[in-house]
Amino acid sequence: MVIVGELINTSRKAVKQAIEQKDAQFIQQLALDQAKNGATYIDINCGTMVGDEEREMSWLVENVQSVVKTPLCIDSPSSKALEIGLGLCKNGQQMINSITAERARYDAVLPLVLKYNCKIVALCMDDRGIPGTVEACFPIVDELAKKLTGAGVPEEDIYFDPLVTPLSTKSEAGMDVVNTVKYIRNTYPDMHTICGMSNISYGLPRRKVLNQAYLMHLMCAGMDGFIMDPLDMQLMSLYHASQALLGLDPFCSKYLKSYRRSMTQD
Amino acid sequence: MVIVGELINTSRKAVKQAIEQKDAQFIQQLALDQAKNGATYIDINCGTMVGDEEREMSWLVENVQSVVKTPLCIDSPSSKALEIGLGLCKNGQQMINSITAERARYDAVLPLVLKYNCKIVALCMDDRGIPGTVEACFPIVDELAKKLTGAGVPEEDIYFDPLVTPLSTKSEAGMDVVNTVKYIRNTYPDMHTICGMSNISYGLPRRKVLNQAYLMHLMCAGMDGFIMDPLDMQLMSLYHASQALLGLDPFCSKYLKSYRRSMTQD
Repeated sequence: MVIVGELINTSRKAVKQAIEQKDAQFIQQLALDQAKNGATYIDINCGTMVGDEEREMSWLVENVQSVVKTPLCIDSPSSKALEIGLGLCKNGQQMINSITAERARYDAVLPLVLKYNCKIVALCMDDRGIPGTVEACFPIVDELAKKLTGAGVPEEDIYFDPLVTPLSTKSEAGMDVVNTVKYIRNTYPDMHTICGMSNISYGLPRRKVLNQAYLMHLMCAGMDGFIMDPLDMQLMSLYHASQALLGLDPFCSKYLKSYRRSMTQD
Repeated sequence: MVIVGELINTSRKAVKQAIEQKDAQFIQQLALDQAKNGATYIDINCGTMVGDEEREMSWLVENVQSVVKTPLCIDSPSSKALEIGLGLCKNGQQMINSITAERARYDAVLPLVLKYNCKIVALCMDDRGIPGTVEACFPIVDELAKKLTGAGVPEEDIYFDPLVTPLSTKSEAGMDVVNTVKYIRNTYPDMHTICGMSNISYGLPRRKVLNQAYLMHLMCAGMDGFIMDPLDMQLMSLYHASQALLGLDPFCSKYLKSYRRSMTQD
């Protein structure tokens, strides 16, 4: 099970400010806190810093790696920024977020996946955009699975992201992703699935509750990667509880360990 | 989806005391609060009042029915207490908790199910006790399904309770029930499943979190009845969120309604 700590992202105001002020300590503390609380990857995303993204990517990667040994998830729509981040990575096998079935994006990112031997988040979309139905999603999954493995990417390095859309715009939005996860699990048992789930609750009240419930639903469906906030104690408690309930935590030992850790932090 | 409000139970100290002091108002408020917050049945259980159970059952049923129109779930291991409660019920189709495949219990309770035309909670256990494995549970389900329908109980009135056991004693306890629910859903699509889930967390810390996560897991598996505390706002919020995520709440209208109701109560 993979948890990508999502907090180092310049769409968050405090992070953007820290980068502008070259406040390395703030960024490093975010990395340390996420690693300590269960992140297996630390996401690095400075995609909002148009024009400066490549320079800031270097600064972020170097500063984060100076304090944690956790591998990074280099997160950008720009293949140039990805390459700069990946070239500096030294914490084990890194992850790229993301490739898609869009022709230009695929062609630009695939060489990086192969060159740096990365895990790769594959968004389920192509040049026609995000598919509007589950049925339209499956052929995109199939295409990406075939092309990536054909190019030499190991099955276990592929993480499909079915792209969560808001429940407020479509009553089936929750189940669409659940059914896509089930399809991928059945069709490609050695590949993985991942998502950031918070989009599900966009436009509705009590977003945290919907996000919590959705984490449980996705775990039940077999999703095994989450891009989330590992400092959200309520969410992480539910995550560990869910693992235990799924029978994936013998003697509830991780559940108990996370409980004890949170008690010493309180 | 059925929610049996579990709070009128003499294993709870305040309820026992209210009955001993004939504090009808306390009991009635509990009934009213549960009905207002989404209980579709109000459980009546005075099984711990050995010797007085039958008298107290009458008092409880009459007092509760004087303030709510919600149907009752008459809950006792004693067929005598069940009959006394059922004989007084007038709020629509009542529910009995419970019958089992134990020969004596089955023979004593079946006539009541038929006479009073009740919904029936069928515990998955027989004269050998609670089965230790999923595989041992299925034949008990099959036996109860066959005998109850053969006796004339409509399929839609049967609620199987797979009997939740603590995760602290068996790492597969959570999935055993999930798999039993899936079996029942596939084999008997017109029958239902129900449980009180709090036993799952017995012996572990942060019980509420485990219970919350387990409610989500069971809803994902297709369980459609819960014996629970409808006044637990966090749990009920997750319940409504989960319904919406499952695509069972068009336009999130029940989710939004429950949100607005909780805001006016705050």
